[in-house]
Amino acid sequence: VLDFELKILGSSSATPSVSRFPTSQILTIGNQINLIDCGEGTQMQLMRFKIKPQRICNIFISHMHGDHYFGLFGLISSMQLQGRTASLNLFGPPGLSELLSLSLRYSNTHLAFQINFRELDQSVYQQIHEEHFFTVHALPMEHRVSCCGFLFREKPKLRHLLKGAFPPNLSPSQLLKLKHGEDLYDEAGQVLLRHKDVTCDPRPSRSYAYFSDTRYNEDLLPYIRHVDLLYHEATFMDDLRHRAVQTFHSTARQAAELAAKAQVRQLLIGHFSVRYKDLTPLLEEARLYFPNTQLAVEGTTVRVSDELIKAV
Amino acid sequence: VLDFELKILGSSSATPSVSRFPTSQILTIGNQINLIDCGEGTQMQLMRFKIKPQRICNIFISHMHGDHYFGLFGLISSMQLQGRTASLNLFGPPGLSELLSLSLRYSNTHLAFQINFRELDQSVYQQIHEEHFFTVHALPMEHRVSCCGFLFREKPKLRHLLKGAFPPNLSPSQLLKLKHGEDLYDEAGQVLLRHKDVTCDPRPSRSYAYFSDTRYNEDLLPYIRHVDLLYHEATFMDDLRHRAVQTFHSTARQAAELAAKAQVRQLLIGHFSVRYKDLTPLLEEARLYFPNTQLAVEGTTVRVSDELIKAV
Repeated sequence: VLDFELKILGSSSATPSVSRFPTSQILTIGNQINLIDCGEGTQMQLMRFKIKPQRICNIFISHMHGDHYFGLFGLISSMQLQGRTASLNLFGPPGLSELLSLSLRYSNTHLAFQINFRELDQSVYQQIHEEHFFTVHALPMEHRVSCCGFLFREKPKLRHLLKGAFPPNLSPSQLLKLKHGEDLYDEAGQVLLRHKDVTCDPRPSRSYAYFSDTRYNEDLLPYIRHVDLLYHEATFMDDLRHRAVQTFHSTARQAAELAAKAQVRQLLIGHFSVRYKDLTPLLEEARLYFPNTQLAVEGTTVRVSDELIKAV
Repeated sequence: VLDFELKILGSSSATPSVSRFPTSQILTIGNQINLIDCGEGTQMQLMRFKIKPQRICNIFISHMHGDHYFGLFGLISSMQLQGRTASLNLFGPPGLSELLSLSLRYSNTHLAFQINFRELDQSVYQQIHEEHFFTVHALPMEHRVSCCGFLFREKPKLRHLLKGAFPPNLSPSQLLKLKHGEDLYDEAGQVLLRHKDVTCDPRPSRSYAYFSDTRYNEDLLPYIRHVDLLYHEATFMDDLRHRAVQTFHSTARQAAELAAKAQVRQLLIGHFSVRYKDLTPLLEEARLYFPNTQLAVEGTTVRVSDELIKAV
């Protein structure tokens, strides 16, 4: 079974605090490491949690507010200094690649690895990337500047062959047909073997939805229904709901209400305003509306298993 | 007596380590706080050492390698979010203001305070700034890209009036003449009062020279002779002298030799390669050639008094 694990590197909103870094997360699927947003200090957090920058293959930047990308240029410099040669996929808003190119030019740096930059149209739900085992979709957020979240989904899996249930002389292509849920026929068109008799349902495909910076917005419910894990920003508590609307952010209660409506399995809340020294009240508020909620603080790790979600 | 105090926020070279941040320093002269270079994470280090970003009036950036400026944009964002209105002086290389403007534009930020950007010509020794109590000169470094260090010097002070040594009926302008080292004459041109009889020498003017990233270079000796405090990068130990030359950096021994030739009072070495987990060998190497050397590690604070240098 592939790993499917999220680790939180930063939990703070716009301004960092002494103990909280701005937003960044690592999502590991199989042996592929994805970095989601890259606030200032991300490379230090990667070191702290012993994650090698060279193993990151995809970086997704949600929007052009500095607390979501000011760590990117330092991380890329360090990849270069540490001898990276493997290409890097970078997904981000218009402008990101211009800033990156300029900073490389002014430092007279010629990267020894390729950056495949894909400029995101953040206004529509759409698939933006496909790997062997998963796909990534952009989720349009409602924020002060163009902004998108991301939906990571394992691809549908093949059916499991039941050991001992099928004859030993089947060819690889026949086995593959059965795994794809097709029956086998002989030349006369008679059923040789029904897939239902020799296979069982595959393990469910796992999914993670990341709501970076956004006002409360139900438009995306159809896309995130039943996801295993939802991260939703919760910059404020609900007594500051008015301020959340003004600043295009959400409250802990709103994050939880969205999780409940989408019937997700687990909710993580993060992107906390520096005004909250103690985060317990935010957690308690969210749990009133969605009990299976956890704080997305530095070091929080959530493994999505096939069966149930385990918080480490 | 004015404060004249240096605090080290970051001691690492290009790549940070778990415990070492990239270059940045705070130099407090009187009530004016100067930030010298601003590597990634500087705003976190300011919080850690309880230095309010809003009190910084001047920022000096030595060159366009990211480990010396990637923290600047986050710091300026936080100044804005924390309600800064006081203008900020920013001294830096060509390109810095272009990058800053672009990042502000893409985040749709309109600063509520003014940034007075002064683009530095880094190729010549020249005065770049003057405050009431001190001046700042650029010191051209020898690095892979245009780079300068900075020399901070208290302005020459007025002579001290010796209490009880002068008649009580002198006018303010007469007192000022004496403090400037002029004698007083009557209308007939006869000496009324000699300044030497009623004043004593002023306290010496203090000075700090910052050598950011540079090859060993004696050309600047005339400008830094007898400075109270010299910070000199020491990326490598002397067994890697060849590598230092290649990468336009210096060794601990070279930093100490320059300090000895310039007859400075105290030397700080920093900008250490991540290869050195333990910094003691670098300190020991430097002290062989200049005994009054200290490591410029995170939190190191040096007060330059009028009389002698105290390390806190």
